[in-house]
Amino acid sequence: MSLKQHVHDLLAVSADGDFHSRAVDLGILGLIFLNVVALTLETVAPIHALYPAAFAWFERISLIIFTIEYVLRLWSCTADARYRGPVLGRLRFVFTPLAIIDLLAILPLFLPLLGLDLRFMRIVRLLRFFRLAKLFRYSRALRLLGRVVLGKREELASICIVLITLLVIAASLMYFVEHDDQPDKFSSIPQTMWWGVITLTTVGYGDYYPVTGAGKFIAACIAVLGIGMFALPAGLLGAGFVDELQKSRGDRHCPHCGERLED
Amino acid sequence: MSLKQHVHDLLAVSADGDFHSRAVDLGILGLIFLNVVALTLETVAPIHALYPAAFAWFERISLIIFTIEYVLRLWSCTADARYRGPVLGRLRFVFTPLAIIDLLAILPLFLPLLGLDLRFMRIVRLLRFFRLAKLFRYSRALRLLGRVVLGKREELASICIVLITLLVIAASLMYFVEHDDQPDKFSSIPQTMWWGVITLTTVGYGDYYPVTGAGKFIAACIAVLGIGMFALPAGLLGAGFVDELQKSRGDRHCPHCGERLED
Amino acid sequence: MSLKQHVHDLLAVSADGDFHSRAVDLGILGLIFLNVVALTLETVAPIHALYPAAFAWFERISLIIFTIEYVLRLWSCTADARYRGPVLGRLRFVFTPLAIIDLLAILPLFLPLLGLDLRFMRIVRLLRFFRLAKLFRYSRALRLLGRVVLGKREELASICIVLITLLVIAASLMYFVEHDDQPDKFSSIPQTMWWGVITLTTVGYGDYYPVTGAGKFIAACIAVLGIGMFALPAGLLGAGFVDELQKSRGDRHCPHCGERLED
Amino acid sequence: MSLKQHVHDLLAVSADGDFHSRAVDLGILGLIFLNVVALTLETVAPIHALYPAAFAWFERISLIIFTIEYVLRLWSCTADARYRGPVLGRLRFVFTPLAIIDLLAILPLFLPLLGLDLRFMRIVRLLRFFRLAKLFRYSRALRLLGRVVLGKREELASICIVLITLLVIAASLMYFVEHDDQPDKFSSIPQTMWWGVITLTTVGYGDYYPVTGAGKFIAACIAVLGIGMFALPAGLLGAGFVDELQKSRGDRHCPHCGERLED
Repeated sequence: MSLKQHVHDLLAVSADGDFHSRAVDLGILGLIFLNVVALTLETVAPIHALYPAAFAWFERISLIIFTIEYVLRLWSCTADARYRGPVLGRLRFVFTPLAIIDLLAILPLFLPLLGLDLRFMRIVRLLRFFRLAKLFRYSRALRLLGRVVLGKREELASICIVLITLLVIAASLMYFVEHDDQPDKFSSIPQTMWWGVITLTTVGYGDYYPVTGAGKFIAACIAVLGIGMFALPAGLLGAGFVDELQKSRGDRHCPHCGERLED
Repeated sequence: MSLKQHVHDLLAVSADGDFHSRAVDLGILGLIFLNVVALTLETVAPIHALYPAAFAWFERISLIIFTIEYVLRLWSCTADARYRGPVLGRLRFVFTPLAIIDLLAILPLFLPLLGLDLRFMRIVRLLRFFRLAKLFRYSRALRLLGRVVLGKREELASICIVLITLLVIAASLMYFVEHDDQPDKFSSIPQTMWWGVITLTTVGYGDYYPVTGAGKFIAACIAVLGIGMFALPAGLLGAGFVDELQKSRGDRHCPHCGERLED
Repeated sequence: MSLKQHVHDLLAVSADGDFHSRAVDLGILGLIFLNVVALTLETVAPIHALYPAAFAWFERISLIIFTIEYVLRLWSCTADARYRGPVLGRLRFVFTPLAIIDLLAILPLFLPLLGLDLRFMRIVRLLRFFRLAKLFRYSRALRLLGRVVLGKREELASICIVLITLLVIAASLMYFVEHDDQPDKFSSIPQTMWWGVITLTTVGYGDYYPVTGAGKFIAACIAVLGIGMFALPAGLLGAGFVDELQKSRGDRHCPHCGERLED
Repeated sequence: MSLKQHVHDLLAVSADGDFHSRAVDLGILGLIFLNVVALTLETVAPIHALYPAAFAWFERISLIIFTIEYVLRLWSCTADARYRGPVLGRLRFVFTPLAIIDLLAILPLFLPLLGLDLRFMRIVRLLRFFRLAKLFRYSRALRLLGRVVLGKREELASICIVLITLLVIAASLMYFVEHDDQPDKFSSIPQTMWWGVITLTTVGYGDYYPVTGAGKFIAACIAVLGIGMFALPAGLLGAGFVDELQKSRGDRHCPHCGERLED
């Protein structure tokens, strides 16, 4: 096996038994996790004031490691059958979602003179969190969750459409009812839609609420429909889980002849 | 096929393969969607101030198109077997729910001199949103949602009755307990029912809440019952989805003996 | 059939086809409903000011009708096999839950000189709402709900015990963490338990919330456990509904010999 | 049976029919419960002011009883096969979770001079609540709940990971969007994560909420994802309950052919 293939296998998700690759995976995921912790703590003024140099150095070291990782992936990607060509294959690789995220994550190293908000660039590094999606291959439980949710994505999208429709209708009704009494709060329909989504999801901050009788009646109806908005996906995913669990047990029998069914 | 039949088929929901009818459907749905967006943005004062003439013209053009559509539907409805008679058939058609909504939506064109709040008339045009119900025929997922919810409508109605009963009893108890301490807030039983529904649905704005010990105890009980109010429909719809998903798999045959599988 | 038996059958829940009894049932339920509406509206000061005499007369007439109904039930109850004895049978009847509720509901007619809060006595008349439980026999859907909830009452009670245990532990922790920072709000453990139940049920009024870092961490854990508090009964009742719906279809077959199972 | 064995059996969870052991169990659980009530009421200033001596004496008596119980358990544990050695066996017993909790609960009797917050030590006595876990053996319903939740612990842990990931990403986005407008509220990412968890769990106190348009859009998305955060565990536990209920019916035989039914 060539050096390029070896590097490729190291960087890829480890197959069972490949301990070096597992170590590399955990190392990179660990660094991502530490980066997120650092980014989070950096915004807490007292902590940042204590160790400004430490944060800056950790930042630079992380960027250098991520850059090395990106260059190695770019170099070794041609070992993968899907990206064989030295130029075209690499271009195809560069535009895969994970590669784009990796590139965005290391940009801050190269863009200090562009005057962009560097802190914004750092939040982009958060997108590397999506590499946690690779955990899917390690966790049977995450795979089950993913199968159930993706298996019902059409129905979940339909529920979203119903939710948005309800929201627009409710917000428009509430706007016409409450606008005169509270012109500063319910000042426009988009503003009222903010009230609508906070009520429909039963969060209920209390920054906006109706004061007229008719407004309270509409709000009560929306709140009750919010119950339905929770019940529909809960029931849908419940049925999805029941399906998946039965499939994975595969022990259904024909009631007529008693033979086992594959399903 | 006569011109009338042709127009009727164009306006009706398209059958598979009828691309002209599909285009008409999408055109009308698109115009409804744009109307809703315009109505929403019109209430945002800065945007409306920028383009008052554009909003007004879009309003008039939409109304003219919707009027033409209504007249065409009224004319061609006799091609449908259900509305065959030239006068009686058309009258029956005029009173179907979708036709009434269409009529309400174009009324603003004819009622400027009646002094009604024109903005209220425009919100009526939102009712055309219910034409989105025609999407049902295009989306297998929306049809599944519809079948499950309609299939359990008796039980859902029962849950509503239980909810309203709980609400009235809780509001009356809370009124007698909190009225003396907070006469401005819990000033009457309907007012307390507003507190009740906001707590039972766990929205919890915070505009009303008990301050006495007994009031807090009642409120705690209501909040916990609110959990049940979410659990009942969630469980019910879950069982409904399990049913429907099994039914839709139901036309399968045992690969061994060839008998039909009921489940 | 004697007059007594006839009166008994009229007052009891109607069997199918007994239209007179059905009319009596609906009449009494209608009067209860009107009473609730009147009691509710009476507390709205403007409405009460408009029609004080009307409310008072409706009150007296309702009380007279309910008293007549109670006396008739007491007289005719011996026609029922369970309360045959003229004295002992009637005593046994008087202490059944529904009879006690009926008695409490008519007490205001006889206790004006006892100086008890008459309005409190009127709220007792709300307890007649439990007669709505008789609706159970008319509504297949309410019966299904009742069977599922009662069938899982042990498990639901266990969930309540878990909820109360969580509540006490969380309130004690939060009390010790937040008491010094907010001595007026988190002034005692029972007071903190109010915060706890409002957070665990995700109502979140906003009258009490932590301000220290440790307090916010505990509150975040409680809020997340609140998700579980909703998920447990939802899943439990979902499984209960699946069971009931399968039982009522009764179409399970032995996978070995193919014969139908009663279940 | 030796005295040691006898004491051991008394203190252990009673087997069916052993009434003395049952009495000891209920006595100890009752004392734990009374301790919790006393601890709770002690924090209510008016009540504590009324009976300070009573609380103090109840405290001392409880500690003495719990100490005697601990010593007896320590002495008799060698009767249990798992802790046979006089020194090593007892050491192993001392480090079991329940024994550690028992020790922490009686420490206040021995640490008054250490200057630790005695009230904090008393809250530790709350940990004896976990002895309620012994109730599991008495309650079929609690065992069912335990089996379902523990059976799905991998998937529930995955949902927690998804929740934390969503939280971090949402909090970072919201921090960068709202920080300039509300520097006191959204002052750091950990602070914003507090907003995030309160919104994702739909508690919605209202102490923090966005005021910018972009912030409201992010908040709306988080609130809607909060619905999913409720739906996933509800559906998962629902499927778990369906499984368990079918398993518990599983030892049935077909009445026609006598074969065992798997289902």
